[in-house]
Amino acid sequence: VTGRTTGTAQGEVGAAGRDARARRVGIVGFGTVGQAVARILTGRAGRPAPELRLAAVCNRRIARKRVSWVPEDVAWTERIEDVLASDADVVVELIGGLDPAGDWVRRALLAGKSVVTANKQLIAARGPELAELAARNGVHFRFEAAVCGGVPVLSALREGLSGDDLLSIRGVLNGTCNYILTRMDAAGLSFDAALAEAQARGFAEADPSADVDGLDAGAKLAILAAIGLGCRVRPSDVACRSIRSVEPIDFTYARRLGCVIRQVARVTRETGGSTVLEAGVQPALVPLASPLAAVQGSQNVVLATGAHGGETAFGGHGAGGDPTAVAVVSDLLAVARQEGPARPWLPPPGPPARVLTDFVAPRYVRFVVRDRPGIVADLAGRFSRQHLNIDAVLQEPGHSKAELPFVMTLEACSTGALDQALGEIAALDFHVRPTVSYPIVD
Amino acid sequence: VTGRTTGTAQGEVGAAGRDARARRVGIVGFGTVGQAVARILTGRAGRPAPELRLAAVCNRRIARKRVSWVPEDVAWTERIEDVLASDADVVVELIGGLDPAGDWVRRALLAGKSVVTANKQLIAARGPELAELAARNGVHFRFEAAVCGGVPVLSALREGLSGDDLLSIRGVLNGTCNYILTRMDAAGLSFDAALAEAQARGFAEADPSADVDGLDAGAKLAILAAIGLGCRVRPSDVACRSIRSVEPIDFTYARRLGCVIRQVARVTRETGGSTVLEAGVQPALVPLASPLAAVQGSQNVVLATGAHGGETAFGGHGAGGDPTAVAVVSDLLAVARQEGPARPWLPPPGPPARVLTDFVAPRYVRFVVRDRPGIVADLAGRFSRQHLNIDAVLQEPGHSKAELPFVMTLEACSTGALDQALGEIAALDFHVRPTVSYPIVD
Repeated sequence: VTGRTTGTAQGEVGAAGRDARARRVGIVGFGTVGQAVARILTGRAGRPAPELRLAAVCNRRIARKRVSWVPEDVAWTERIEDVLASDADVVVELIGGLDPAGDWVRRALLAGKSVVTANKQLIAARGPELAELAARNGVHFRFEAAVCGGVPVLSALREGLSGDDLLSIRGVLNGTCNYILTRMDAAGLSFDAALAEAQARGFAEADPSADVDGLDAGAKLAILAAIGLGCRVRPSDVACRSIRSVEPIDFTYARRLGCVIRQVARVTRETGGSTVLEAGVQPALVPLASPLAAVQGSQNVVLATGAHGGETAFGGHGAGGDPTAVAVVSDLLAVARQEGPARPWLPPPGPPARVLTDFVAPRYVRFVVRDRPGIVADLAGRFSRQHLNIDAVLQEPGHSKAELPFVMTLEACSTGALDQALGEIAALDFHVRPTVSYPIVD
Repeated sequence: VTGRTTGTAQGEVGAAGRDARARRVGIVGFGTVGQAVARILTGRAGRPAPELRLAAVCNRRIARKRVSWVPEDVAWTERIEDVLASDADVVVELIGGLDPAGDWVRRALLAGKSVVTANKQLIAARGPELAELAARNGVHFRFEAAVCGGVPVLSALREGLSGDDLLSIRGVLNGTCNYILTRMDAAGLSFDAALAEAQARGFAEADPSADVDGLDAGAKLAILAAIGLGCRVRPSDVACRSIRSVEPIDFTYARRLGCVIRQVARVTRETGGSTVLEAGVQPALVPLASPLAAVQGSQNVVLATGAHGGETAFGGHGAGGDPTAVAVVSDLLAVARQEGPARPWLPPPGPPARVLTDFVAPRYVRFVVRDRPGIVADLAGRFSRQHLNIDAVLQEPGHSKAELPFVMTLEACSTGALDQALGEIAALDFHVRPTVSYPIVD
């Protein structure tokens, strides 16, 4: 079995010393990640990769993107058609989003080119169909960079843990949220102040919704569910709750409970079946001893729990140009060294899994009230009616009675019963701000 | 490209419902791990693996090993020759050690069978030659289980991080040592008491030397260096120091310094070259915030640091029948699904890397002395002569002057200068016990 020879003839007349058998790579989208990939491929960032050869770069308004440090025979273009018609063996898609990225990837696969992408939205929404198209066309389709940037969790789930029977995956999957929450905790910042700091330092975008409201982590979770649990979870079936409701006082109460606050993504499959018992992204209290609590700043962690191997953890830099480029180049090297197209990573297209939305966990419930006698009795009565047991009542000193934050923790209870009780409680007259509740997970 | 068809004809007359195209697996060594592998393959532990089929089990005194829950067509034998002559496609070697395992693996590869092994000593000593033999014979040779049991760090280094330029690998690689050290820390046990507890709970062998003196972690480190850094480090070139010197008082002093004590394995390659700057396994002080400090009980962690992706962490169950079996079955599934033999994992046989033994780190030095005036001045004088700067002097109250433990920490210094100073200091007359020194690493 030998490597593909497409483009060899032209390769031989390329720049002196460049391996004619190297896979020819076309980069589509020359932003931070694309440039970092090009630096690794051309050896500008250290050792070059002799198995790979940068052949083309495609970007809007390409003139302002040109750099002098790539070899002269690299083609620069604004038109995807030029890349599709070129002798590139692999297209690296780094423009993100569903449109036009989905169409471009499809056309690249149909043109017989392997595709490597960092596009989590595309994989979460259309991954199985594209993987099947790649298999039909005898080419590779890889996307390690789509989940947790430089942390090689997808290949680990697919390869190193394939012998286990994985039942749940949990993680801190969004570096922007983790940066914001760890800064709120460490510096006592408000959400808005921490977000502004994250934006100023390049860790958050001008419109932070996809990050802070959970959609970004939800797309990653859907991909992890497909590869790790073999379950097709639609991104829209992932229950997402924003971290915007978290206030500095919540970190104080969390500490008193031996916890920190993290944006936690969780997906759990039933033992011996394919029903998804829970798929959600939300702020949660995490005990300090949990690996989920140890994630600082913009880092990510993924915990996979299997029936045989127990819990395995993967952590590192989930975003940023260089770490994401490592994942892209690792995928390119895998394409280059495999003799034949590998089995598709994703389960075949089919009906999505049934996803339950109710789950059982202890809860943290924070109220902000205009204080008067009888409030705790009122609340206890409403919780009791739903058979919810109060575990503790916490009240930090030093707050005004006109706007008093205090916390109740509840023993493990279902989301449905909690929501019912909180719905009744919302009608009571002492609230100054809406009540928030977070699960306490471990 | 289709799968190999060896054994198909016989497979078709096997047990009803078993896939005739499945790879036929012969397990050599039916202890804890071998039985756990068999349970997964036969579906006794949950979902069976349809791509794989248990065909033969080989063990000394096989009669006492027979179990009723494997299919009737599985062959039981005491003779490796029977396995080599059988139609097994893959041999799983789980007997451990260099001899006869090395010969048996070689003969299996020569017989055209793929080999999956958990044998760290064999891979560390003879891995490259066996990998080359496998490649020449067109078969697979995989050994994920040889390092950190169920933690899929080898496939992650080889695949998911292949696009990085890895410069160093650090880890807590031996679960026995970590169990002993965390128990000494948590319960104030002596080394001997913690070892006895580990032995009673099955976490340590009757002869614990390979674990506590560092040889086990050293073999794993040599494999990690080969796969992650591309450096051939002979196991005998890994500088190993035992954890037997650690005493309960050291944990007290470590806490005062914001640290815990771990058996830390480290290998570092020079940037842009192949000289190994350090390859060692030794007790070390680790700051509490380090991922190396978070490893509890018999768990393992590996930290890989690359020029592009920064630090990536892999953690989980490094030993035990079920987690190790997950790694073995994952390797078997990789053999089953790949169309052609993959590129060997290990660098080709060749001269070993040059390994430097001196490294620079801050140091923890603990003395136990018969107290008298002038001891600190004496010690300070000897350190000063080697240009070693004292950072702190710590002395816990409540100890007898006849046997007084106290600690000096030194600013970053080379091993050579430290050993020179400690050699001179050993000749002084106030020592009650030998002085110990540990690096402070992060």
